[in-house]
Amino acid sequence: MKKIGNQTFQIKDDVFVRDTFTIAGKKEGEGPIGNCFDIIVDDDLWGEDSWEKCELKFQKEAAKSLMQKNNLMEKDIDLLIAGDLLNQITSSSFAARDLQLPYIGVYGACSTMALSMGLGALMIDGGFASNVICVTSSHFCSAERQYRLPLEMGGQRHMSAQWTVTGSSAVWLSNGGFGPKIKNVTFGKITDLGVKDANNMGAAMAPAAYDSLSQHIADTKIKYDLIVTGDLGTVGKSIVNKMFNEENNSIEDIYDDCGTIIFDLEKQDVHAGGSGCGCSATVFGGFLYKKLLNKEINKLLFTSTGALHSPTATLQGESIPGIAHCVGIEM
Amino acid sequence: MKKIGNQTFQIKDDVFVRDTFTIAGKKEGEGPIGNCFDIIVDDDLWGEDSWEKCELKFQKEAAKSLMQKNNLMEKDIDLLIAGDLLNQITSSSFAARDLQLPYIGVYGACSTMALSMGLGALMIDGGFASNVICVTSSHFCSAERQYRLPLEMGGQRHMSAQWTVTGSSAVWLSNGGFGPKIKNVTFGKITDLGVKDANNMGAAMAPAAYDSLSQHIADTKIKYDLIVTGDLGTVGKSIVNKMFNEENNSIEDIYDDCGTIIFDLEKQDVHAGGSGCGCSATVFGGFLYKKLLNKEINKLLFTSTGALHSPTATLQGESIPGIAHCVGIEM
Repeated sequence: MKKIGNQTFQIKDDVFVRDTFTIAGKKEGEGPIGNCFDIIVDDDLWGEDSWEKCELKFQKEAAKSLMQKNNLMEKDIDLLIAGDLLNQITSSSFAARDLQLPYIGVYGACSTMALSMGLGALMIDGGFASNVICVTSSHFCSAERQYRLPLEMGGQRHMSAQWTVTGSSAVWLSNGGFGPKIKNVTFGKITDLGVKDANNMGAAMAPAAYDSLSQHIADTKIKYDLIVTGDLGTVGKSIVNKMFNEENNSIEDIYDDCGTIIFDLEKQDVHAGGSGCGCSATVFGGFLYKKLLNKEINKLLFTSTGALHSPTATLQGESIPGIAHCVGIEM
Repeated sequence: MKKIGNQTFQIKDDVFVRDTFTIAGKKEGEGPIGNCFDIIVDDDLWGEDSWEKCELKFQKEAAKSLMQKNNLMEKDIDLLIAGDLLNQITSSSFAARDLQLPYIGVYGACSTMALSMGLGALMIDGGFASNVICVTSSHFCSAERQYRLPLEMGGQRHMSAQWTVTGSSAVWLSNGGFGPKIKNVTFGKITDLGVKDANNMGAAMAPAAYDSLSQHIADTKIKYDLIVTGDLGTVGKSIVNKMFNEENNSIEDIYDDCGTIIFDLEKQDVHAGGSGCGCSATVFGGFLYKKLLNKEINKLLFTSTGALHSPTATLQGESIPGIAHCVGIEM
């Protein structure tokens, strides 16, 4: 069994993160890591007639551009693993329609990039696939109108609310080549401490992040150079730090959150930070992957975090179940 | 590489379908295979205060009952793979909250049971998991109000419309024991011939079923005793038969559809047949699994079919992408 500790899968053979392609929106392009993205799209419709169609174009173009850049044909790719925030993950499924690859649709809310990369790594290490493409996306406008309020209303945002990242990243995993390798994968359990406020997703997801991170660290005993969570923002990040500190096991020196990396929290009026499937995806694909390639980081624990609620469940009085999936990557 | 032909993954080690537990609604219990289900729930709320909460109870009870029946503890299960039709797959995620197992959420619409079982089999054969639970559900009332019209309106149903199955099945896959074995898995590509009518899902999904079935058969060259699709109903089933007949490769003698097995189409007023994630799940878990155990079938090609649309996409003029995933099982 390729399992270590209670919950972590160990990758025995080589699974390389061979390349990434990242497309981001205007606001993301103006942020502190804006120069890391392959394409920045200034228009929130990108020539389409709805935000939802724009979002699927982000996914489709990210995956197609990644394939073109690396001369990959459809026949070279064994699996496409994709998901997004929209109902029935239509951005992913409609993009997959044009990509014509064997397709596994996943739903992990904002945890989707780590979930997809973890699954893809297992498929390669299990001997089933040579090449896998993982892709995910989010779009501020499509997410806001599905999860919260019509944008046209101009509602006041809570200070604990986060800004859904407009962006998509496609990641090519392969059993051959070079680059950083995926070494360990921990799929999370659901943690739900009863937070019901959809304007405070960081607090809803932080206990799940703590649970998966501490399980992964206990299982692997690896000293990481950098631990990042997906989109906890300032509120969730401080809760994670507090939970580790209370166990006398501080990670503060090596811990950051993609939601606080992607935007300038002082200047960009995003309140608690970035969120969405596109958040950890674009920060990994655009920023962290290059740091691994340049050996600025050698051991990265990439942990996307998801809030698995729905507007219907919230209206029915339910709290927000959180989840976090960890992917340990080493250069 | 454990790949045969273009698109099929071959399971080399033993992956047993060790047991199933199936819960069905009143109408399903009154149908021709009603005596195969472990529990029949007469009340469409099962003591809950919404159909959505009732559906998640179906999933939770199916998985818990399967574990209790087989003396399985949480620590014995390496992965829970689950999905359903509701927005943000809340039936699965809220059931997973109580099950406390490492959780992979998938979305394949009505193709979810074959998708989950296929993924679970690969996880076991890849050496990552010893025991996996796959679970999915649907509920007529929660599906109708999400995808179509309020039930209270009493709208007239189209003759090509299908009846969403109220039910859930949990399937235990294991690397040890006895029982039928999963041998080959084909994850489908999206096929979309432009059908836009959400009241004719069979026609939307049939070309995808034909594509995956013919790919699986070409890849494996296995002569199956029985081929079943998930929920094409009478309309889709006849299209699949026609497509194979046009290639002079008739499968009519060995082919059936779960949507036409679960209901008495003459007497139960379900029009074109059953549908939903619960359709192929309950027909497999309750009916086909027992036929395998009793050796009435030795080689089964279980193919769940999904229509990956959303009400939003339909309102925006999109057609319905179809997908089908094949799992070859042998006793």
